[in-house]
Amino acid sequence: MYSVGIDLGGTNIAAGLVDQDGKILYKESVPTNAQRPYTEIIKDMAELSYNVIKGANVKIDEVQKIGIGSPGTPNCKEGILIFSGNLNFRNVPIKAEMQKYINLPVYLDNDANCAALAESVAGSAKGAKHSVTITLGTGIGGGIIIDGKIYSGFNYAGAEIGHMVIHCDGVQCTCGRKGCWETYASATALIRQTTKAAQENPDSIINQLVDGDLSKINAKTPFDAAKQGDEVGNRVVKQYIKYIAEGLINVINIFMPEVVVIGGGVCKEGEYLLKPLRELVYAGVFSREEIPQTQIKTAQMGNDAGIIGAAMLG
Amino acid sequence: MYSVGIDLGGTNIAAGLVDQDGKILYKESVPTNAQRPYTEIIKDMAELSYNVIKGANVKIDEVQKIGIGSPGTPNCKEGILIFSGNLNFRNVPIKAEMQKYINLPVYLDNDANCAALAESVAGSAKGAKHSVTITLGTGIGGGIIIDGKIYSGFNYAGAEIGHMVIHCDGVQCTCGRKGCWETYASATALIRQTTKAAQENPDSIINQLVDGDLSKINAKTPFDAAKQGDEVGNRVVKQYIKYIAEGLINVINIFMPEVVVIGGGVCKEGEYLLKPLRELVYAGVFSREEIPQTQIKTAQMGNDAGIIGAAMLG
Repeated sequence: MYSVGIDLGGTNIAAGLVDQDGKILYKESVPTNAQRPYTEIIKDMAELSYNVIKGANVKIDEVQKIGIGSPGTPNCKEGILIFSGNLNFRNVPIKAEMQKYINLPVYLDNDANCAALAESVAGSAKGAKHSVTITLGTGIGGGIIIDGKIYSGFNYAGAEIGHMVIHCDGVQCTCGRKGCWETYASATALIRQTTKAAQENPDSIINQLVDGDLSKINAKTPFDAAKQGDEVGNRVVKQYIKYIAEGLINVINIFMPEVVVIGGGVCKEGEYLLKPLRELVYAGVFSREEIPQTQIKTAQMGNDAGIIGAAMLG
Repeated sequence: MYSVGIDLGGTNIAAGLVDQDGKILYKESVPTNAQRPYTEIIKDMAELSYNVIKGANVKIDEVQKIGIGSPGTPNCKEGILIFSGNLNFRNVPIKAEMQKYINLPVYLDNDANCAALAESVAGSAKGAKHSVTITLGTGIGGGIIIDGKIYSGFNYAGAEIGHMVIHCDGVQCTCGRKGCWETYASATALIRQTTKAAQENPDSIINQLVDGDLSKINAKTPFDAAKQGDEVGNRVVKQYIKYIAEGLINVINIFMPEVVVIGGGVCKEGEYLLKPLRELVYAGVFSREEIPQTQIKTAQMGNDAGIIGAAMLG
């Protein structure tokens, strides 16, 4: 049997036909055009579902279900998207609307939860009973897998790990609080930290790497500078890894999962990031006695995580 | 059917015969004398078990199991206490040793987890699928209940919620990190904060309340001062409640449990503590859309939580 997985994003809707091992047989995407009425967007999702089933040369009666991953807060039981800022959705009955077009069970969950499920079923946390997936992007996304299933609390709104304050009264966060982990350890935060360091240190290689145009700084820039021996870049990277570690140790002290998976562009730095990160984390976790420790791995599923995780829902 | 619940503490061993609703029929306790060989301590636990069965007028074949709550890090599967600083135990085979004396299933877990289970089965979180119990004491203890069961990670060492850093590079914690929640929001932290404020403000009522002897300050002192209109006491209490809220919002953003239960002596302040705490928490949680919110309650089980929770293990 197969499932359709749909990654409903603010920019694109991507769908794939996925087998039971989490392998995508065929995929397609269309622009979301998020400002349209939700009925049109959902109609497109239904069409995409038929397209990927057809494109994979699979019969509809071999398809078991449709899973949808979406930004925002879902009511997973009812298949309703309570709220999504990115999509401008409020109390949208996604499941009921999809089932007007396709007579299949429809499951809905948050996109970060889907990514975590994908890593758990087919990625870096495969085989682990409990895992936590953290994505260091514009913000910090979190997905919690307990006993092989998504955990998001009684109202499906949990796992907001990026909105864990690690520095009381610290940097202002978009959520209204100050000092959330994502204001220190997201890619956005790293760019802000790098820009500030470059302004304060005009001689740093960072300034050369972007031809003096600090708006060109991205999350790779400080790593590039550090690798060239730049002291300022090195300091920025070291401090950033410390910020990642602070939140990660919190997550481990609380969850003690077999695996913590870290995703996001910054993971392309590989061992340059992971080696010092592991050192800080294992020195900081609360239980250091002769017990098994949480493994820290980078994400494997990449851009397809949303489709694969959605397909694994239900 | 009944269970024996044993609360193995650094000072006393307390045991009770407990019915299926979490009611203690009969209880007894003896001093732990923690410096003795573990064989003697466990022999005492076995004797206590027989005593409470007898004291409750229950036949041994009506007793289903024995549960033991202990400080430190257990291996719950094997019934071994890996490590406990309070008890000076290391890799102690509690289950096997107990079963030399009593032919019953023996279950072992951490005492904070047992307290959370007691609140979940028979206390403030009764009826909730997911709950988190926080005890504000010498440190901050945490217990996580997911789907009605204790969650403590793959190695049983999780739920160390007190060792979640809320203030990077903040107050030095006994765990080696800086800025753990318990260094700001435990009873110990409140006493430290109150003492400092009293030193800096000799005219504060706080100084009168302890007859000028600051070593007499306890966790009730700043609340008493605040209630008498003392500005310094008021400021200390307000800041302390903010520290509790910071960690609590983190817990809610991550877990979204139906109920968060707060225990520890400071809870005797009741609504004087809870009202401003709820205001801060509900203003700060990430998901404030029209979805059900976590309830914040004080613990109900008191000193018997350890016995009752232990009896509910297995």
